[in-house]
Amino acid sequence: MTKTPTIAPGATIGILGGGQLARMIALAAANYGLKCHIYAPDADSPAFEVAAHSTVAAYDDAEALAAFAAEVDVVTYEFENIPGATADILESRSVLRPSARALATTQDRLTEKRFVNGLGIETAPFRPVDTAEDLASALEALGRPAVLKTRRLGYDGKGQRMIRPGEAIDPAAILRSLGDVPCILEGFVPFEREVSVVAARGADGAFAAFDLCENEHRDHILALTRVPAPGLSEATATEAARIARAIGDALGYVGVFAVEMFLVREGGERLVVNEIAPRVHNSGHWTIEGALSSQFDQHVRAVCGWPLGDPSRTGGMAVEMENLIGADADSWAGILGRPGSHLHLYGKGEARPGRKMGHVTRLIPDRR
Amino acid sequence: MTKTPTIAPGATIGILGGGQLARMIALAAANYGLKCHIYAPDADSPAFEVAAHSTVAAYDDAEALAAFAAEVDVVTYEFENIPGATADILESRSVLRPSARALATTQDRLTEKRFVNGLGIETAPFRPVDTAEDLASALEALGRPAVLKTRRLGYDGKGQRMIRPGEAIDPAAILRSLGDVPCILEGFVPFEREVSVVAARGADGAFAAFDLCENEHRDHILALTRVPAPGLSEATATEAARIARAIGDALGYVGVFAVEMFLVREGGERLVVNEIAPRVHNSGHWTIEGALSSQFDQHVRAVCGWPLGDPSRTGGMAVEMENLIGADADSWAGILGRPGSHLHLYGKGEARPGRKMGHVTRLIPDRR
Repeated sequence: MTKTPTIAPGATIGILGGGQLARMIALAAANYGLKCHIYAPDADSPAFEVAAHSTVAAYDDAEALAAFAAEVDVVTYEFENIPGATADILESRSVLRPSARALATTQDRLTEKRFVNGLGIETAPFRPVDTAEDLASALEALGRPAVLKTRRLGYDGKGQRMIRPGEAIDPAAILRSLGDVPCILEGFVPFEREVSVVAARGADGAFAAFDLCENEHRDHILALTRVPAPGLSEATATEAARIARAIGDALGYVGVFAVEMFLVREGGERLVVNEIAPRVHNSGHWTIEGALSSQFDQHVRAVCGWPLGDPSRTGGMAVEMENLIGADADSWAGILGRPGSHLHLYGKGEARPGRKMGHVTRLIPDRR
Repeated sequence: MTKTPTIAPGATIGILGGGQLARMIALAAANYGLKCHIYAPDADSPAFEVAAHSTVAAYDDAEALAAFAAEVDVVTYEFENIPGATADILESRSVLRPSARALATTQDRLTEKRFVNGLGIETAPFRPVDTAEDLASALEALGRPAVLKTRRLGYDGKGQRMIRPGEAIDPAAILRSLGDVPCILEGFVPFEREVSVVAARGADGAFAAFDLCENEHRDHILALTRVPAPGLSEATATEAARIARAIGDALGYVGVFAVEMFLVREGGERLVVNEIAPRVHNSGHWTIEGALSSQFDQHVRAVCGWPLGDPSRTGGMAVEMENLIGADADSWAGILGRPGSHLHLYGKGEARPGRKMGHVTRLIPDRR
């Protein structure tokens, strides 16, 4: 039984996940007079603080999922590692946006790369790796350096292992260190930097991409996003949006997603897709102040079946977004007093190293 | 026992009142990683939807107020009609911002006008009216037209009665129609239009006014706010901010407040104070998109004892804010599709006539 897909103000959006992305989706939904129901296993999750309706239950609790689906008008999520059975329960009992199919395609690195290549879009070279023999032959084929990654459940550098030139390795031990799960070996891409497109696709197929961003990582965690990505050609920016649109169309996607890409200069400026995130994305946080319609606004509009908003940059300003990671957030009082800085804190209790505690957005005159 | 006035992210703001102003304060607080506890008598109040902590109790329930004060780090409110005894309970058990004194001064039209005049700032001429005889002699003194208003509890044109030239009146009957409560008669001010200053004052005495707005009312309810107020001199804008600052300083005010003023042309462009609202104000809703720091951000910063943000207009744009009243909100889907329009809905159930359901903000190039 599928509910009517058109949602009106007063309706309830169900959100799987209780972190900062869910929290910021809920704040955007509130602005449109929508209610939110947060579903997360940890009662301490920051998104619970901004919504009156909540379920504390495991993601594989079929009974709790069914009750949740019955209380909401549409379901969305803040993370891609949702079990397939969970997605199926929600899709059969409510409207799930993005769909179970979009999740299935993007939560497995191997499926995702094959899907992207199938659209004629370049990725890093790769080989599936299930056994020590697979790893040895994949290294033979792709050369070094190369990165072995778990096919599922990796994020922020977790679930991966770099293999360097000349390094003596024990393939079985490496696979064991990653938990002996299905893996993928990715060959080296000689990239100059990482960029991303954050885009929305509406239930009607409308597409709206935010401007191409450049991302800097520190310890495998996004540290800084700059928009527009400095020194890139207009053609590359256009191509990035084309790639995102092709991916969104092929998935029949509804909602906001991000496509992380490598910018390669060798053999002419070109883009190589790294991964797809089927959700709002850290590299889109700048849009809260930096764009006319934020990624969270766009996601809410899309999942409700509403028209997309305008993704243009506010007043044509350039934007920088800096993550506040771990103890970075201790400087909140100083940031509050810094002219032109917009502080966001996620309401997380403990500032553990590597934990995303908040972010700061700065709008600056665009000198291009 | 007074708690330490400096509040850090993770602390809880208690908000008295459950309407759209409380809701928008809570959304701004969430952005800074603060928790909110909403206290309101009606379980259906829209602010409950955006906060995890709530008390449903009457505003004069001493026990519930004490429990509320014990659970929060600072208390603020969205409306001025808080009983004095309630303010005293909260101030003695927590930190109340703005203070009980600011409330007492501004919730009574007579006290407020005397206070404003005491600062050398002009108001409409007025007389206290407690009896039919008072009304007759006040009319004699001030002439007609004049407006009889209850000293307390009036808003959006409620609790007032215009008395026109030549109109035959029964003073006792008029007083009865207003509930036989203490009143004030206000003489006629030949104003060209209504303007307002929305401003913030920090716990350290810092002051930050938003740009002077022009307000259009329909059926005594704010319909449209324009910023900057067109056709006013720079001197008038400066004088408006000076008036607001003098009022804020004299009250030792902490938080956001609004000063509604009449613009009078007779005898040279000048400002006459109409009333003070000791709270965030409908004529400041444009600041959500139209200013670098919104009135809700500023209010949260002030009540937490944090530095105030920058009240400058975003990218120097002119701004229009239109209220969606009653059935106006039925056009939400069309507004969503209108480029450059920012839709806000308050999550109210029933669109009764005269009920503020939401607002729309438009940023437009400033042609001045």
